[in-house]
Amino acid sequence: MQINVLTLFPDMFTPLQTSMLGRGLEDNKWQLNLVNFRDFTADVHHHVDDAPYGGGAGMVLQIMPIKRALDSLKNKGKVIITAPQGKIFNQQVAQNWAREENLTFICGHYEGFDQRVYDMADEVVSIGDYVLTGGELPTMSMIDATIRLLPGILGNAASPIDESFSHGLLEYPQYTRPENFEGMKVPAVLTSGNHQKIAEWRHKEALKVTYLKRPDLLEKYVMTTAEKKMLSEIKAEINKA
Amino acid sequence: MQINVLTLFPDMFTPLQTSMLGRGLEDNKWQLNLVNFRDFTADVHHHVDDAPYGGGAGMVLQIMPIKRALDSLKNKGKVIITAPQGKIFNQQVAQNWAREENLTFICGHYEGFDQRVYDMADEVVSIGDYVLTGGELPTMSMIDATIRLLPGILGNAASPIDESFSHGLLEYPQYTRPENFEGMKVPAVLTSGNHQKIAEWRHKEALKVTYLKRPDLLEKYVMTTAEKKMLSEIKAEINKA
Repeated sequence: MQINVLTLFPDMFTPLQTSMLGRGLEDNKWQLNLVNFRDFTADVHHHVDDAPYGGGAGMVLQIMPIKRALDSLKNKGKVIITAPQGKIFNQQVAQNWAREENLTFICGHYEGFDQRVYDMADEVVSIGDYVLTGGELPTMSMIDATIRLLPGILGNAASPIDESFSHGLLEYPQYTRPENFEGMKVPAVLTSGNHQKIAEWRHKEALKVTYLKRPDLLEKYVMTTAEKKMLSEIKAEINKA
Repeated sequence: MQINVLTLFPDMFTPLQTSMLGRGLEDNKWQLNLVNFRDFTADVHHHVDDAPYGGGAGMVLQIMPIKRALDSLKNKGKVIITAPQGKIFNQQVAQNWAREENLTFICGHYEGFDQRVYDMADEVVSIGDYVLTGGELPTMSMIDATIRLLPGILGNAASPIDESFSHGLLEYPQYTRPENFEGMKVPAVLTSGNHQKIAEWRHKEALKVTYLKRPDLLEKYVMTTAEKKMLSEIKAEINKA
């Protein structure tokens, strides 16, 4: 997969060139094409912004250099932009994008875009109800979530299958050495060697943490008969406590 | 404000040292203390992870080096960690954090933490329902959202007041030159010079985009009588179209 990013700050993209995603780039499992749209301005001062029509504080990023930068790309694929009015980015969106050959992200920076830039995008996505100085960080997060799903990126280090959201439940708690850290102990069942009991405990804990912390996920989850029984036990235990 | 970050990848943090946040660091308006918790391991191989109790694939980040790294900090303030079961990070959380003197973020990387690391944190926050290779990118987003609210960070370039979420409505669309770009035109009202009409148009467009794209925000928003009238007009216009 080739990812194009239109940005005024290509130097910000070091996180994607580090660790596992960076190894993926070196091994040519994906390609990252950083395009500074300031290079596509028509004026000698390389302005990318101008005052808003109708007045008001601040500046607005112009459509012209962005459109020219887009037109310069060989394969742009889906054009994606972040905005608060977009649909919420989630694991399902990442899974859909991971099936594409090309994706192009446009990053703004503290100023908004001319509305016609949003109108040009294929997908407008929101990364949450908060304001950032630029689109670079959320774009990197979306690229990370997407690229890690490609074959060979995570290697043997981890698998994208056995984790939160993939099955509809949050993950059960994990523990490693030491068994007792300053009085904080590992649950006894995990050191019992009884694999069936461990599997049951984990399944129940996943159900419990989802019930307690993310009941919205549980509403969408189709429970087996065994899970329904587990959930009744969980509710009874909580009421007793 | 001083921000401490515990991470295995301090080199990833260039985005916070660029542009306006970077200038804020240079001007000492905030401080960033990157701590590699691999430096706090006790064994010669500097392992930070180990196999999970109870078996299973993957490795788990150990509590020991993280606790030692935390203990080495002079002022750690609130200790924050990201996890899918956390409360959703939003602008209100950023505003609360912006009032703190110190914050400490712990970043995991592809493997989960020992549950006791989560238990040590003051706040467990979620940045959305998707999975990343590490905690570095969401941590940088949360730091960006928080630090940009501090005095003197944005300078004259922009103001954190007049933007989406701050008032409860999404922002109205902005336009800048050219007036006609390949047939995509600026709304005539914005070039009319009639400031009252422009203000009304913008107010109504903000209400309209919020009604259409984020009705959940509108439910929490207390409307004036004038806004209620505007919303009726908007609904009538949509039904007609």
